[in-house]
Amino acid sequence: MTDHVLALNAGSSSLKFALYELVEDNRPSMRWRGQIERLGDAPRLLAQSAGGRSINEPLTDTKTHDEAIRAFLKMARENLPDIHVRAIGHRVVHGGAVFSEPVRIDDSVLDTLNGFIPFAPLHQPYSLAGIRAASAAFPGTTQVACFDTAFHRTHPWVNDTFALPQRFYEKGVRRYGFHGLSYDYISQKLQDIAPGLYEGRVVIAHLGNGASMCAVSGGRAVASTMGFSALDGLPMGTRSGQLDPGVVLYMMQQDGMTAEEIADTLYRKSGLLGLSGISSDMRTLLAADTPDARKAIEYYVFRIRRELGALSAALEGIDALVFTGGIGENSAAIRQMVCDGMRWIGIEMDKSRNADGGTVLSTDLSRVRILAIPTNEEMIIARAAARLA
Amino acid sequence: MTDHVLALNAGSSSLKFALYELVEDNRPSMRWRGQIERLGDAPRLLAQSAGGRSINEPLTDTKTHDEAIRAFLKMARENLPDIHVRAIGHRVVHGGAVFSEPVRIDDSVLDTLNGFIPFAPLHQPYSLAGIRAASAAFPGTTQVACFDTAFHRTHPWVNDTFALPQRFYEKGVRRYGFHGLSYDYISQKLQDIAPGLYEGRVVIAHLGNGASMCAVSGGRAVASTMGFSALDGLPMGTRSGQLDPGVVLYMMQQDGMTAEEIADTLYRKSGLLGLSGISSDMRTLLAADTPDARKAIEYYVFRIRRELGALSAALEGIDALVFTGGIGENSAAIRQMVCDGMRWIGIEMDKSRNADGGTVLSTDLSRVRILAIPTNEEMIIARAAARLA
Repeated sequence: MTDHVLALNAGSSSLKFALYELVEDNRPSMRWRGQIERLGDAPRLLAQSAGGRSINEPLTDTKTHDEAIRAFLKMARENLPDIHVRAIGHRVVHGGAVFSEPVRIDDSVLDTLNGFIPFAPLHQPYSLAGIRAASAAFPGTTQVACFDTAFHRTHPWVNDTFALPQRFYEKGVRRYGFHGLSYDYISQKLQDIAPGLYEGRVVIAHLGNGASMCAVSGGRAVASTMGFSALDGLPMGTRSGQLDPGVVLYMMQQDGMTAEEIADTLYRKSGLLGLSGISSDMRTLLAADTPDARKAIEYYVFRIRRELGALSAALEGIDALVFTGGIGENSAAIRQMVCDGMRWIGIEMDKSRNADGGTVLSTDLSRVRILAIPTNEEMIIARAAARLA
Repeated sequence: MTDHVLALNAGSSSLKFALYELVEDNRPSMRWRGQIERLGDAPRLLAQSAGGRSINEPLTDTKTHDEAIRAFLKMARENLPDIHVRAIGHRVVHGGAVFSEPVRIDDSVLDTLNGFIPFAPLHQPYSLAGIRAASAAFPGTTQVACFDTAFHRTHPWVNDTFALPQRFYEKGVRRYGFHGLSYDYISQKLQDIAPGLYEGRVVIAHLGNGASMCAVSGGRAVASTMGFSALDGLPMGTRSGQLDPGVVLYMMQQDGMTAEEIADTLYRKSGLLGLSGISSDMRTLLAADTPDARKAIEYYVFRIRRELGALSAALEGIDALVFTGGIGENSAAIRQMVCDGMRWIGIEMDKSRNADGGTVLSTDLSRVRILAIPTNEEMIIARAAARLA
């Protein structure tokens, strides 16, 4: 029986998972990773092992979201008889102002996490469904919650509040920040590969399907572009990013839209999809080369550049810019557009290094280092699960 | 009969005015300026002449907002028998995407301006009431509309849009920008006193009861912190400034607030007043020195610094920072806090110059020039009225 930990990331239409063996010093070493796609519809299991095996099969006899998760976990338990799952770590979208680090889940913690549903009504219920399903399938196993908000709890008050009457802050209307597991991973990685930069002023751009940026000073988060919800800051695949609150009032008062219609527009029909009218996928837009696709890309890049200036002000300067997330890791074109014309702030990209896609993308003389580092949120979850097991 | 122009700025509770004589080359020279306060309540006329005379008296026999304006204009016409008002210029909050410069008002223009009420329901009706009252009191006199949005119509598309479905842009949901008359004045003044800086990259911070910042390159506006409404960007006396759209959804869906209650909170109870719980007036907060007053000031300053970085990114660098508006012109303390720790961007304030309150506030070695210039929106209105008379 070898000791393992399981990392789970339960969303509205997928469950991502990664299974790690604990090797020397309880270090997690990845064995399997994959996801169940099309949860609640026609669920399908996709998985790859570190050794090169792969699975791609339907999850039959399941109808609901919860049933599919339970079926997968039962299958995992039965098909891995020689392993001992010491702990299961969960990505949880919202840890409120309470949790600044991972926590072992008990009834009291679950109650608290339930109380954060009003802050993230579209995401938090799925996090909690994943926890309930894992507790049922692995009774007695330590369950650990890892929060997308936790890394940001070191923000100073000016980056934690909005300029609203105080009662809103007191009841939890704050700039929580998200993508914290990714920022935590990148920050730890930076400590390994570039301890000098880790000690400095770093802006991390997590550019994936969701997107945000985080200002980190000496390994501690100082500011983020995401605020109270996952809507704020950068435009995303289908989310608006920064929006004048007067626009929401206009939608209510002049357009007669309901709250649900506005939420649906801002979460699912805006961003790259809304601007381009074509797609939420940056690869599609880069390939499309139509005027609307180009405009959507131009807006996306401009908002990143704007926030790069803003977060540098929060840090009183910048020593390194790190790209991560699907777009940040893979799109040399977007990285180049972000960095063009940024000499005023000390950013000089080496075009051929950027095209080649290594880790360091800046010229040797650039005052600010530019890096691309693949993120690994599951690894952060696995480390926390191993630590708290 | 000497030729004059009258500049009017009609708001919800006051009508500000300035009377200019047209001297050589139709240049406006101020003769009287003042305001009617407490419109719709107990209206009172306050005015000072360039020669040192002053008026401070109730406007009796008027009840409504419109009656008071009409009474004042009638009085002005009757008491200034030896002058000829060649044109009346009006500050108009919203010129939509249509008007990029001042325009002579006719029925068709008025219709168009009426159509912008949904974009600024709390402000545009007062602008139009002022125009109607002036047209009635001075029949046949040229009326000119000067727009707070016009100076911003040179923004590139990325600064004119939000990442929403395209139909919203098409029906007018854009980043209009406001305080344009002030930015226009400062930009023209800069051309007079510092033509080299005028040609460069300038960030103007209009810090008054309302507050915004504008990035100007070679005299043309490139970006602003204000967007669709007068709510966005910097926190203000009672307005929130930047707010995650998810907070508005939360207020609707979780707090059950109506659109009117949300608008009332964001326009009238937020900003410095909301954060401090004491006052919307920066002078009061600076004098109060309580923890909440200090926090409100800290937030205000931080958001200015953040936008200074963001607007510098929009300009690809910065050559000058200009402070204007009541707080920008008069508060050495706020200016100092904004500029502290801004060496990374080339901003170095001379503390004693700042305290002395001259025009140039930067050190001789500062790469970025820091200036304080009193704004004069009425002068911009008067010049436009004289030009179009």
